[in-house]
Amino acid sequence: MRLVRYGRPGKEKPGLFDEEGRLRSLAGVIDDIDASVLSEKALRKLARVDWKTLPLVRGNPRFGVPVKGVGKFIGIGMNYSDHAAEVGAPIPPEPILFMKATSSLSGPDDPVQLPPGSKKTDWEVELGVVIGERARYVSEADALKYVAGYCVVNDVSERAYQFELGSQWDKGKGCDTFGPVGPFLVTKDEIFDVQDLDLYLELNGKRMQTGNTSNMIFTVAQIVSYLSRFMTLEPGDIISTGTPPGVGFGRTPQRFLKKGDQLRLGIAGLGEQQQEVLAFPKP
Amino acid sequence: MRLVRYGRPGKEKPGLFDEEGRLRSLAGVIDDIDASVLSEKALRKLARVDWKTLPLVRGNPRFGVPVKGVGKFIGIGMNYSDHAAEVGAPIPPEPILFMKATSSLSGPDDPVQLPPGSKKTDWEVELGVVIGERARYVSEADALKYVAGYCVVNDVSERAYQFELGSQWDKGKGCDTFGPVGPFLVTKDEIFDVQDLDLYLELNGKRMQTGNTSNMIFTVAQIVSYLSRFMTLEPGDIISTGTPPGVGFGRTPQRFLKKGDQLRLGIAGLGEQQQEVLAFPKP
Repeated sequence: MRLVRYGRPGKEKPGLFDEEGRLRSLAGVIDDIDASVLSEKALRKLARVDWKTLPLVRGNPRFGVPVKGVGKFIGIGMNYSDHAAEVGAPIPPEPILFMKATSSLSGPDDPVQLPPGSKKTDWEVELGVVIGERARYVSEADALKYVAGYCVVNDVSERAYQFELGSQWDKGKGCDTFGPVGPFLVTKDEIFDVQDLDLYLELNGKRMQTGNTSNMIFTVAQIVSYLSRFMTLEPGDIISTGTPPGVGFGRTPQRFLKKGDQLRLGIAGLGEQQQEVLAFPKP
Repeated sequence: MRLVRYGRPGKEKPGLFDEEGRLRSLAGVIDDIDASVLSEKALRKLARVDWKTLPLVRGNPRFGVPVKGVGKFIGIGMNYSDHAAEVGAPIPPEPILFMKATSSLSGPDDPVQLPPGSKKTDWEVELGVVIGERARYVSEADALKYVAGYCVVNDVSERAYQFELGSQWDKGKGCDTFGPVGPFLVTKDEIFDVQDLDLYLELNGKRMQTGNTSNMIFTVAQIVSYLSRFMTLEPGDIISTGTPPGVGFGRTPQRFLKKGDQLRLGIAGLGEQQQEVLAFPKP
């Protein structure tokens, strides 16, 4: 299933894209797409609904984050071998964990807003993993059982905040609008091989990032298993699994986001995001 | 007011400690202690309730985290001048921000559980700040207006995970049970000067940490103002503002938590926590 949440911010309704690519409402079937529908059992039940009976949604609504109630928004740093090479960073011996503030979450096509005075806001197309069931000390072999599905994440990052104001990255990762997620939560049964998905990102129509999840240093299963040793992963948690080459910080000369820039990014089978870059509205 | 949430994990009810130190139920007045009651206006309304009319709670219930729906659990590192001196760290030029997983939150007297194989789990008594109203780019002068009140936090930290598995601290800060908070959320009107509160922590009856919030490098107002430039602070968010000297990591020889250890920690006017240290139950 390709699950979505559509409507105005804070008023999103659950829906799905049917096999013919049309948006249908799930509001008569479930209250929302949250922890209560992400387990394997609940998703199987939802999949048994005959989509032809669901009402079509008219118009072109906005999409929100496809999961409600994200408790943790976890990032993995430096997880593509070709990206590490690009920025001259060593291959990390273990996954690098950081946290994005959940207040940074935004819809896939909502604008990215530059913090006042920001000069180094950067893009990062990433595969997002949505946890479906409580995972604690799970083995790599079992890890994907705890995953509900996948989504596109733009792990927007302010590099000066991330690297120049102390050692801890979280300061540059959690600004408002720095976490576009969606449009779809694609359930895992629809993804043949999560370690062979093409990712891309375009800035103003020009290709900046090109990657494939086969170049991940740590696989999704390894990441879920690893993280589950340090914290319980809960249904609705989102893990953003690192970015392929081509971020602004890694280019020569460096290129960061400016007001008016247009981003388009996506992952094969998981849909596409489009964001306009705005200056942050005055506080 | 000294607000609490009491009862079994996940089933906590709202209450308050009255002026005579007795626990009374707020269940007939509010649904829970969450974002909806943390604004200045909502707290004023709650304060008008005649506590003598509230039913007394019998027995000695467990206490939970005194706020429900914590969206962000933010930590500030190295924020006491005497603690920085103790570990030989430089005074940070700006607050160090890290994030504790919200899944690490636990009641003030719930056991602290050592992760399997953990050898360096450490204690940190800290002043917790509970956000009452949405704060975004707020000035230092205005910052405390956005605060609902204060609480005791034990920022339990696994030093090997924090320092030896990469550069990012979050890995050692968010393990399950690493975030005891409470017992009280003390509303700010009850605290005469938040920058003059004594903190203490005892391990097995022996004093390990002694501090005063007057030794903070960045004051609560500075921290709230600073953080609000990097992320919107939302009602119910908790900021743990750093620890005074005396952590196990800073001692000679170092001393870390072992199964059976007993912790007692508190802050003047904010109550006391007591935790038994347990080995993590087998996954």
